[in-house]
Amino acid sequence: MTAVVGDGGGRCIAVVNCNTSSEMTREIAAGARAVAAPGTEILGLQPVWGPTSAEGFYDSFITAAAVLDLLTTLPAEVEIDAVVMAGFGEHGREGARELLECPVVDITEAAAMHAMLLGHRYGVVTTLPRVRGQIEDSLLVAGLAQRCVGVEAADLGVLEVGRDHARTVAAFVAAGERAIGAGADVLVLGCAGFTAVRAELAAALAVPVVDAVSAGVTTAEALLACGSRTSKVGAYARPLTKARTGWPVAVGW
Amino acid sequence: MTAVVGDGGGRCIAVVNCNTSSEMTREIAAGARAVAAPGTEILGLQPVWGPTSAEGFYDSFITAAAVLDLLTTLPAEVEIDAVVMAGFGEHGREGARELLECPVVDITEAAAMHAMLLGHRYGVVTTLPRVRGQIEDSLLVAGLAQRCVGVEAADLGVLEVGRDHARTVAAFVAAGERAIGAGADVLVLGCAGFTAVRAELAAALAVPVVDAVSAGVTTAEALLACGSRTSKVGAYARPLTKARTGWPVAVGW
Amino acid sequence: MTAVVGDGGGRCIAVVNCNTSSEMTREIAAGARAVAAPGTEILGLQPVWGPTSAEGFYDSFITAAAVLDLLTTLPAEVEIDAVVMAGFGEHGREGARELLECPVVDITEAAAMHAMLLGHRYGVVTTLPRVRGQIEDSLLVAGLAQRCVGVEAADLGVLEVGRDHARTVAAFVAAGERAIGAGADVLVLGCAGFTAVRAELAAALAVPVVDAVSAGVTTAEALLACGSRTSKVGAYARPLTKARTGWPVAVGW
Amino acid sequence: MTAVVGDGGGRCIAVVNCNTSSEMTREIAAGARAVAAPGTEILGLQPVWGPTSAEGFYDSFITAAAVLDLLTTLPAEVEIDAVVMAGFGEHGREGARELLECPVVDITEAAAMHAMLLGHRYGVVTTLPRVRGQIEDSLLVAGLAQRCVGVEAADLGVLEVGRDHARTVAAFVAAGERAIGAGADVLVLGCAGFTAVRAELAAALAVPVVDAVSAGVTTAEALLACGSRTSKVGAYARPLTKARTGWPVAVGW
Amino acid sequence: MTAVVGDGGGRCIAVVNCNTSSEMTREIAAGARAVAAPGTEILGLQPVWGPTSAEGFYDSFITAAAVLDLLTTLPAEVEIDAVVMAGFGEHGREGARELLECPVVDITEAAAMHAMLLGHRYGVVTTLPRVRGQIEDSLLVAGLAQRCVGVEAADLGVLEVGRDHARTVAAFVAAGERAIGAGADVLVLGCAGFTAVRAELAAALAVPVVDAVSAGVTTAEALLACGSRTSKVGAYARPLTKARTGWPVAVGW
Amino acid sequence: MTAVVGDGGGRCIAVVNCNTSSEMTREIAAGARAVAAPGTEILGLQPVWGPTSAEGFYDSFITAAAVLDLLTTLPAEVEIDAVVMAGFGEHGREGARELLECPVVDITEAAAMHAMLLGHRYGVVTTLPRVRGQIEDSLLVAGLAQRCVGVEAADLGVLEVGRDHARTVAAFVAAGERAIGAGADVLVLGCAGFTAVRAELAAALAVPVVDAVSAGVTTAEALLACGSRTSKVGAYARPLTKARTGWPVAVGW
Repeated sequence: MTAVVGDGGGRCIAVVNCNTSSEMTREIAAGARAVAAPGTEILGLQPVWGPTSAEGFYDSFITAAAVLDLLTTLPAEVEIDAVVMAGFGEHGREGARELLECPVVDITEAAAMHAMLLGHRYGVVTTLPRVRGQIEDSLLVAGLAQRCVGVEAADLGVLEVGRDHARTVAAFVAAGERAIGAGADVLVLGCAGFTAVRAELAAALAVPVVDAVSAGVTTAEALLACGSRTSKVGAYARPLTKARTGWPVAVGW
Repeated sequence: MTAVVGDGGGRCIAVVNCNTSSEMTREIAAGARAVAAPGTEILGLQPVWGPTSAEGFYDSFITAAAVLDLLTTLPAEVEIDAVVMAGFGEHGREGARELLECPVVDITEAAAMHAMLLGHRYGVVTTLPRVRGQIEDSLLVAGLAQRCVGVEAADLGVLEVGRDHARTVAAFVAAGERAIGAGADVLVLGCAGFTAVRAELAAALAVPVVDAVSAGVTTAEALLACGSRTSKVGAYARPLTKARTGWPVAVGW
Repeated sequence: MTAVVGDGGGRCIAVVNCNTSSEMTREIAAGARAVAAPGTEILGLQPVWGPTSAEGFYDSFITAAAVLDLLTTLPAEVEIDAVVMAGFGEHGREGARELLECPVVDITEAAAMHAMLLGHRYGVVTTLPRVRGQIEDSLLVAGLAQRCVGVEAADLGVLEVGRDHARTVAAFVAAGERAIGAGADVLVLGCAGFTAVRAELAAALAVPVVDAVSAGVTTAEALLACGSRTSKVGAYARPLTKARTGWPVAVGW
Repeated sequence: MTAVVGDGGGRCIAVVNCNTSSEMTREIAAGARAVAAPGTEILGLQPVWGPTSAEGFYDSFITAAAVLDLLTTLPAEVEIDAVVMAGFGEHGREGARELLECPVVDITEAAAMHAMLLGHRYGVVTTLPRVRGQIEDSLLVAGLAQRCVGVEAADLGVLEVGRDHARTVAAFVAAGERAIGAGADVLVLGCAGFTAVRAELAAALAVPVVDAVSAGVTTAEALLACGSRTSKVGAYARPLTKARTGWPVAVGW
Repeated sequence: MTAVVGDGGGRCIAVVNCNTSSEMTREIAAGARAVAAPGTEILGLQPVWGPTSAEGFYDSFITAAAVLDLLTTLPAEVEIDAVVMAGFGEHGREGARELLECPVVDITEAAAMHAMLLGHRYGVVTTLPRVRGQIEDSLLVAGLAQRCVGVEAADLGVLEVGRDHARTVAAFVAAGERAIGAGADVLVLGCAGFTAVRAELAAALAVPVVDAVSAGVTTAEALLACGSRTSKVGAYARPLTKARTGWPVAVGW
Repeated sequence: MTAVVGDGGGRCIAVVNCNTSSEMTREIAAGARAVAAPGTEILGLQPVWGPTSAEGFYDSFITAAAVLDLLTTLPAEVEIDAVVMAGFGEHGREGARELLECPVVDITEAAAMHAMLLGHRYGVVTTLPRVRGQIEDSLLVAGLAQRCVGVEAADLGVLEVGRDHARTVAAFVAAGERAIGAGADVLVLGCAGFTAVRAELAAALAVPVVDAVSAGVTTAEALLACGSRTSKVGAYARPLTKARTGWPVAVGW
C-alpha cells in the first residue's frame, strides 16, 4: 500500500486518489488537511496499479477496480472511519459502499451537493472535453443532475493542470464563463487536485466555486459527526463470499 | 427575538425552528448541539409569529415569511456564520439565501443528501399524510427527488410525536417498513425534533436512519469549513431596495 | 382590506395582486375585466402589507404570506366564487388551495396551460434575469415545465414596465426572439399587468402571446362553469385548527 | 357531414366525437351544452367513417385520420371558432392544430389541466385496461404526466358504459379508489360521454371529479375569451400544399 | 396494393413507405435490400392513399391510417415475417403492433437505438424545421429521447432531398455540425430514403451516421433471429371486433 | 486468454462473459450460436481474473476491469468484428467502446431495446434482490429506463440458476407475474445464461420474453450489417497514451 503517512490524531479519513500519481495524491491530501477538523487524521491513499491519470471511461473502470483492490487489501492495523473517493466523475463508489460499513463519499456527489446549497443552478468546469459525458453520467446516476446546467471543459489534461498556472486559470475562467452563460450561479471544480485554482476562479467570476476534495472531506466529517454508516441492506449489502480468481490483484505481486 | 441563549464559542450556527413552539425549538437546538463541532455555538431561534406547528402548505407559507421576518430583524450584535432552516419540507429556503451571504442549509435538502450517500434509494417517514405532497414538492424543486422511493406518514401530528413514545416509535417503524418495501435501503426522518426516535428506528429496521437536524447542522459545518458562501449572482442576488409596507412585521409590534 | 370596489353582477372572481402597488392592482383588474364573462364581477384585491413589487424569492415568500393573510381576513360579506393569484411565478398558490374550497388559479399555471394548447413548445418572457430561476421552479413544481424551452428576461423591473412603452416593447421583443430561437412557437408574458404589451409583441413576433392574467381569469371561469371545487382531501385538506401567534397579521394593526 | 344540428347563437364550438356512434355524439354534445356559455353554439360532430368506438391504438389512429378528414371537408358555411377533440387519449390533436387557426382543445389535455388546478396529484379512471398505455402516452407527450399517479381501468367497454348504470358506477368507484390509494386527490374521467357518472363518483369518493368534455369546452371558451389562436409557426405551421391521393377520403364516396 | 414485387427467398420483411411516392418506395426498398441478410426477401410497400410526402403532423396522421389500411388489407397470400415502418418520426407504429403478431419496427426507434450503441449522445438531422417537434415527440414517447441532444433541420423538403446532391449534402453537413456542437458524437439521418447521403456525411463529419432504414431492417432481422413476436397482452392486444364504417378505406374503391 | 475456441466462419463476434465461470461462458456462447447468422463465428471469451459470478457492485467493477484487461490483451491474430458484453447490468461497456472501434453491444441495452420494440412497458426479472439497484442504474444511464416498470428478483444466485430447473422456472414465473402486475407486457431475462428458461417463462406468462444474450448477438449482427462502427469523437475517443502501472494485469502473471 503506497499510503502517504497519516498525521496522527483520532478520527481517520482515507482520501483515495484514483490514479497512481504520487504528486497528485500529495496535493489531494494537502487539500483535504486544509479543511479537515482539528482532530481528524487524513490518510492519503492511491492504488498500487492503474493509470497515472484518469481521463476517460477506460481509465475510469481501471481505477475503479484498482481502488477496490486497495480497499480490500488495506492492512488490518489501518483503521479508517470514512473513505473519500477523490476522483471526480470516476467509477467505483457503489462498490466501495458495498465493501465497507463506514461512510464512503464520492467527491463528485459531495461537490454537486455543496453547489446545490450555495446556488440555484450549478455548472461543472473540468479538464478535457472527453470526460464531459462521463461526468454527466456520474451525476445522473447519483440523482444530482437536475440542477446542473452543463459540464464545460478547460481543455487541459489532468496532469497539465498547474504546470502553467496562468494558462490554467485562464482556461478555467473561460470554461466558467460558458457555464455562467448557460445559467450557473455556482461552479464545481470537476477534478481532484484543483484546490490552488479555486480562489482565483471565484475572484475572477464572482460566483462561489466548490472544490470537490474539500466538499468530499467535510461531507465525510458531517456523516461521521452524525454517527452514520453505510446501509448494509439491499444494493450495498456486503459482497457475497465466493471465489475471485487472481483477486485482489496486488497481493499476487 | 425569542432566541434560546447561545452556548458560547467561536463559530455560530443559527438553527431556526419554523414554528413558535419553544419546546420544539429547545429540542431542535439540543439535537443540533449533540452533533456540532466543539467550537461551534448553536443559536436556537424561532419566529415571533406564526403557527405553533406547521402541518400543511398554509402553515408552511406563514412560517416562511415569519422566518424571513426573523432573519431580517436579527439584532446587529448577533453574528451568525450559517443558518439551518429546521422545518422539514417547509418553504422559505431560497428567500433566506437571497437575504443572506452566509450558507443557508435546509434540513430537507441536507437529510436527503446524507441519505443518498448512505444508501441507494431512500424513503422519508413523516408525521401526517397531508404533508406528503409538500415534502415531495420540496425534494423535487431541490433536485433531490430522483432517488426517493416515497414519503410515508406515521399519521401523528408534529406535536403528538414523543407524547406517547412507544406509540410514536411503533407508528414510525410501520411507516419505515412501507418505505423499505417500496425499495428504500435508508430512511430520512422527515420532521424536526425527532432525534429521540432515530436510534430505535434504526435498530428496529436495520437500515441507516438520517435525522434531519443533525444532517443540517453538520452540512452547515462542512460548508463553513470550506469557506463557502451563498451565491450573490442570479437567483440569489440580494433583495432589491424598495418599499415594503408593514415589513418587517415584528418591528411594528 | 384595500380592495378595488367590485363592479357588481353575479359570479365574483377575486383577482389578487401579490404586491401592494395599487396602480398595478388596478391594471390587473382592468385586464381581468376585459376577458371576464358578462355576468362576472371582478374583485381586484391586494395585500395590506408587503413589497410594492415582487422581484425575487425573498419578496415572493413575503407576498405569499401577505396574500394568505388577506384571504384569511376577508370580510364575511365578500362572497368569492374563485380566486386568481395574479403574481407570475410567485409562491402561495398551494396555501390558498388549502384554505379555500373555491377554485384557486395561479396565473403562472394558467398561462403555461394556454400556451401548451396553442403551440408545441413555449417560452416565457419576463422582467428581470433574477426571477428566471423562480419561474422555472414554479413551472417545475406545477408539472408544466416539460414543454418550456426557457425563460428569457427583458431586463426591466416590474414597475419599470410601461414607463417607457417603446423601450418596454423593444426589450420584450428581443427576449421573445431569444425564446423563439430556442424553439418556442408560443410565448407567455411572465408578469402580471402586461396586457398592454401583448398585442404589439404578437404582431412583432408572429407567434401567439399569452397574457397571464387573461389566462388566469378565463381558466377560473372554466372551472366555475364546470362546477369544480378544490380538493379537500390530502395535500389541500383544510388547515388544522391550532394556535397561530400574531396571525393573521393585519388584524393586529 | 353527420353533424348534430347546432342550437343557434354567436360563438360556435365544434365538439368532435372521434367515433361514429351517433348516440355518443349526442351525449357528448349534450354534456358540452350543459357547461357552455349562454351565447355559445355547440356543434356536435362525428367522422363519416371509422370505428363505432375507439378502444386501442389501432382504432385511435383510424379516428385521428377520420377526424382530420371531417375537419378538412367541413362545408364553407360552417364557421367554427374552436374545436374540441372529444376522444379521451385519442390521437390527432396536433394534426388539427396544424390544419386550423382557431384553438383546438383535446379533452385529455383540458381534463388533466383542470385536475392539476383542483388537486395536488391526479388519477385517471377509464374504461378498458388496454387503453391505459395509450392514455399515459397522450399525457406524456402533452407534458402533463408528471403529477398523474396512474390510470386505472373500470374494465368496461366504451359502449358498455351507462348500459347498466349501477354496475358502471360501482366499477368506476372501485377504479377511483385504486387511484386515490396511489395518491390521487382529484380524478379525471378518462372517456367522453361520462357526464352522467361524474356526480355519483364525486359523492362516493369525496374528491373532485373532472369530466373531460366539460373541461374541454370550457377551456375552449377560455381561449376564445382571450382572443387566442393556434400558432402558425414551427410545428403547427399550415400543411404544405401537395398531392394527397384519395384524400380527403369522404369526398370520394 | 401497390407493392414493389418481392425478390424471392425465405424470410420476408415488409418495408412500408408511409407516403405514396413510388420513387421513394423503390429507394427505401433498395436501401433495405442492401443490408438485409442473404435469405431475406424485402417487400417494399406503400399505402394506396395519402400524401406523396409526409412533412408535418397533419400528413403524419393521414399516413398512419393509410398504412394501417394497407396492413389490414394485405392479400392472404402475402406472408410477412416482420414489418418495418419506414417513415421517420411518423405515427402509427403502436397501431401496427396492435394489429399484427409479427415484430413491427419503426425506423425512428431503430435508428435511435443504433445511435445509442455507437455513441454517447446522438443528434438527428432531418429535412424541414417544421418536423422537429414531431420527431422529438416520437422519441419521447418511445422512451429514447434522454440521450438525444437535438433535432437539426437541413431545411430541405422530403422530395427535394437528392435533387441537387451537392446542395443536399452541404445542407446536411451544416445541420450535422450544429448537432455535434450541441454534444452529439453520432448522428441519425432522420428521414427515409437518405441512404445515398450517409457515407458522405460520415466522411465530412468524422462521426458515425445511422441510416434509419438500414437500422430498421437489421433490427427486424435481429428480432426474427430471436424468434420474437409482438406482445398480445395489454396495450398491444388484438383490436376488438366491432363495426368500423367505411374501413378499410381502400376496399371501397 | 481462456477463450472458448471459435467455430470457424467469416464474421466473428466475441461474446464476453464477465465472470470466470467456464461453464457459464460455454452456456452463453451456445446461446449466442443459436441465434447467430450462418456465416458468423461466435468467440466465447471470459476474463482471466475476477469473480466466478457477479452479483453486486463490488463484483461488477472488478469484472469491468477484468474484461477491459482481456480486451486489451487479445492476441493480434484474433480478429473481432464486434463485441457483446454478456453480463447483465454489469459495468464496463463505455470503457470497451473507448478502447475499440468495432461495435460494442451490452446485453442489458440490447435486451431493453428488443423489449421496447415488442411491448409497451417492460419488466426485468433477475436473480438476486441485491442487483436490482445496479440494473436500474445501468438502464438509467443508458437512457432506457423510462418504459421499464421495475426489476423483479427471483431470489436465486447466478450460479444457482438451472441447478434445480423446476424451482428456477417457478421462481422466475413468480417474479414475472409481479412485473406484469406492475404493468409490463413484455419481460427481459436479466441475466446471461438464462436461455433455457426463456421458452417456459413465455409459455407460462403469455408475454414475450427477451433473452439478453440473444438480443445482444443479433443486435451486433444488425450493426455489422449496417457497417457501423463506434464513434471515436468525444466520450468514446481512443484512450490517451500514458503510463498505466501494472496494466494490463494479466500480462504480469
